[in-house]
Amino acid sequence: MKIYIHTKFEENEALLIKEQLSEKYKIVIGEEIPAEKREEEFLSASICFGNVPLAWAQKTTQLKWLQLHSAGLDPYQQLTDHTFKITNLKGFFGQSVAETAVAGILAMYRGVNHLTQLQMQTKWVGTPLRSTLHLLNNAKVLVLGAGAIGLKVRDLLTGFNCKTTVLDSKTITQLEEHLPTTDIVVATLPETPETIGLFNKERLHLLKCTALFVNVGRGSAVDEQALIEMLLNNQLYGAVLDVTATEPLPDDHLLWQMHNVLLTQHTSGGWANENIDKIKFFLENLSRFECGEALVNIANLARGY
Amino acid sequence: MKIYIHTKFEENEALLIKEQLSEKYKIVIGEEIPAEKREEEFLSASICFGNVPLAWAQKTTQLKWLQLHSAGLDPYQQLTDHTFKITNLKGFFGQSVAETAVAGILAMYRGVNHLTQLQMQTKWVGTPLRSTLHLLNNAKVLVLGAGAIGLKVRDLLTGFNCKTTVLDSKTITQLEEHLPTTDIVVATLPETPETIGLFNKERLHLLKCTALFVNVGRGSAVDEQALIEMLLNNQLYGAVLDVTATEPLPDDHLLWQMHNVLLTQHTSGGWANENIDKIKFFLENLSRFECGEALVNIANLARGY
Repeated sequence: MKIYIHTKFEENEALLIKEQLSEKYKIVIGEEIPAEKREEEFLSASICFGNVPLAWAQKTTQLKWLQLHSAGLDPYQQLTDHTFKITNLKGFFGQSVAETAVAGILAMYRGVNHLTQLQMQTKWVGTPLRSTLHLLNNAKVLVLGAGAIGLKVRDLLTGFNCKTTVLDSKTITQLEEHLPTTDIVVATLPETPETIGLFNKERLHLLKCTALFVNVGRGSAVDEQALIEMLLNNQLYGAVLDVTATEPLPDDHLLWQMHNVLLTQHTSGGWANENIDKIKFFLENLSRFECGEALVNIANLARGY
Repeated sequence: MKIYIHTKFEENEALLIKEQLSEKYKIVIGEEIPAEKREEEFLSASICFGNVPLAWAQKTTQLKWLQLHSAGLDPYQQLTDHTFKITNLKGFFGQSVAETAVAGILAMYRGVNHLTQLQMQTKWVGTPLRSTLHLLNNAKVLVLGAGAIGLKVRDLLTGFNCKTTVLDSKTITQLEEHLPTTDIVVATLPETPETIGLFNKERLHLLKCTALFVNVGRGSAVDEQALIEMLLNNQLYGAVLDVTATEPLPDDHLLWQMHNVLLTQHTSGGWANENIDKIKFFLENLSRFECGEALVNIANLARGY
């Protein structure tokens, strides 16, 4: 049985896969063969680990199981009539993304990004900065999304004495009631028809001018132009954006220059052992596949996560 | 009875004091009178709020109570034979300093300071950054000092699934046992004969090369030259320093330029309502003073906090 690997791994990571699987399987790692040979290798594989081009996934007749290396399903929602199973990494990034969300909140409140700028300029300000800082203590936090990320954000805030509310796909109808009294919004939403444009101009304007907007879900959840206008006009305290409408962010984009915005460049899902841990997840799911057990994280293409 | 105020307050803050106290007391705010008149006004006051020069405190015969606006007692340990009570703001800065400590840890682990530098340079790196990041999840944290700051650091970490140990003045003898397995040291120590130079070169070298050193106590606790050498030689992962041996940090100091150091410029004790909250603390202690009740935070000059 052939396994095709379509993820960019370091040498030691690829080695781990081969060590574990070469006795039982034919392993083909896309990165190790010429680009023009890859599609052909994929099309004769029974199992694939990695996010292959949609066109390949539409063409395969041999594939039994596609393990994605992402939580997001885009663009595979467009698949129809596929006969293979699709699993994703739902939940895998919860801790990591939630840690970046809280890191971003604390960076804004405790002035870390401003202090970093001063450090680059060899500029001591000290005491006068103190009155510009804020405490997370007592803050009213609204977390959107009750998946692995949203629940983990709530967990991480346990010791901070915040008033945290988590809205899931059912309770999201209460969004507008909560916005006017919220200090910090943390959007952790996947991209679905319901979440696209959820934060339109009207809803954004329900927020206090002291509110901090954090987005670690998908850029499509927010009307970015409306958000930028509010930030420019000090109608919001600030924004921490791991995701934006366009990534990479174009050089001439306004967001780069805004002092009340922290851009984390879609890194929130990452950590030093991310790939090793992904491989471990795949190997565990593979052992289930071998025994005919139910795979973990069967993707629901219709729902979008 | 005269109250002399020796703290730099904004107009609205000074107004709050006057509104609350002018009926009962003669209030003199040092900042509002010529500099050369201040010592004389202090010397005829019964109560003082603020850190007056040591020489004044040595000279007064009228003072009954000195409420400091700091947690630190320096330089008042040098007082001998004083007849007035001294109270400080011990515990007042716990939440704020602990939040900056955790903000700093998360900033280093989640790359916030590096991402801020990239933002200043309008430079998108994105995915390749992910493998440089770390998770606080599971980290072994050693907190030095079991005062308000140390205990609050432990509280704030509750949701992060860290293995946190707090050493107080009795258990500090176990320091050397803990250092070789610690991921993150958070020093929250006051300056006392026992803490000065506690982190000498020998003890620093017991740390792992992946360890993060955080100091939100006093700069005198660490051999700064040894720390810098280790950071330059990648014998440590990094440092978050709210305090340094010399403050403000001189322009030509090596620490400014170090990519694995975050300098928070002794701001950790600050927040937007810091002064208002200090005034509230003073007013509450004053009502105890009026009733002859025991004052909160009587300073122990011999102990140093």
